[in-house]
Amino acid sequence: MSEQDHQHGYIDSKADYLKRLKRIEGQARGLQRMVEEEKYCIDILTQVSAMTRALQSVALGLLDEHLNHCVVDAAVQGGEEKDIKLKEASDAIARLVRS
Amino acid sequence: MSEQDHQHGYIDSKADYLKRLKRIEGQARGLQRMVEEEKYCIDILTQVSAMTRALQSVALGLLDEHLNHCVVDAAVQGGEEKDIKLKEASDAIARLVRS
Amino acid sequence: MSEQDHQHGYIDSKADYLKRLKRIEGQARGLQRMVEEEKYCIDILTQVSAMTRALQSVALGLLDEHLNHCVVDAAVQGGEEKDIKLKEASDAIARLVRS
Amino acid sequence: MSEQDHQHGYIDSKADYLKRLKRIEGQARGLQRMVEEEKYCIDILTQVSAMTRALQSVALGLLDEHLNHCVVDAAVQGGEEKDIKLKEASDAIARLVRS
Repeated sequence: MSEQDHQHGYIDSKADYLKRLKRIEGQARGLQRMVEEEKYCIDILTQVSAMTRALQSVALGLLDEHLNHCVVDAAVQGGEEKDIKLKEASDAIARLVRS
Repeated sequence: MSEQDHQHGYIDSKADYLKRLKRIEGQARGLQRMVEEEKYCIDILTQVSAMTRALQSVALGLLDEHLNHCVVDAAVQGGEEKDIKLKEASDAIARLVRS
Repeated sequence: MSEQDHQHGYIDSKADYLKRLKRIEGQARGLQRMVEEEKYCIDILTQVSAMTRALQSVALGLLDEHLNHCVVDAAVQGGEEKDIKLKEASDAIARLVRS
Repeated sequence: MSEQDHQHGYIDSKADYLKRLKRIEGQARGLQRMVEEEKYCIDILTQVSAMTRALQSVALGLLDEHLNHCVVDAAVQGGEEKDIKLKEASDAIARLVRS
């Protein structure tokens, strides 16, 4: 199954991911307002942690969809495509765990 | 020293924090574009990790400034103000470590 | 393929995982010695971070092997076994990312 | 106040830290047994996450005590000692957040 025929796992929840990323964009603007208004450091840090968790949950969702679709399709296909997809998934997981 | 007289540590680097948060806002928009254009999951995850690290470094900077100013001022002042500030700092650190 | 016939991915590198976990056990003892000898907090924290990273890399290795064997086998098998294995993998990844 | 006169913050809870680290050492041995007995990867990963969280909470405890004692003492003392202690604390926090 070539890259083009394959539909990425997250497409079915595309609207939801766009909504969540829009909210995260809003959080980034909110942080700028807090710094602009010279709010207390700890209150800004609390918002940064909330935004980090929101990003993390988007990432975990995308990863779950990727495993369920791209990796499963490649596993069934076998061969080099399988190895590439699995290596990509493991590298993405390592980046997430270490960030 | 009351909350108002005290200037938060990050104020001296306010412009820099605003610039970095503006960039993070741009990354949030970039992620929306990638999802809109149905880009490959792994490429989106790579950007999410980059954005998470950018947020993390803003948080570590704010925390360092908070320790160097708000916590030091309170330590010198002593008493309840010191205890409050230290508890706030430890809780903020825990949130960061666990997010 | 039932649980028993299936050999877990990590078995081929069993000796390596045992060696790494043995070293981590040694790090835990080393931390106890540092506390016993009332070493400086920051030096102890440096060792805790090193031990955390060692644990993290064992986890990422096990996860990679799990994806490459258990999840791939289940993906090929399809059906409920696939869904169970994928859910387990995603939950394990979430625990790692959030710890 | 020289390094020797100063008592590190965690000394008052030394027995508790030794107990927690002893338990973490036991978890490391438990993981070796699970690998030895070729337990299921996901079950091992669950234990690794639990051990990581236990380590994290030891680190956050030590850091809190360090701030409350070593950093506060240095803040009151002021000058170079203060700057050194604050830099050490921020670097330790960054290592924890990034591990």
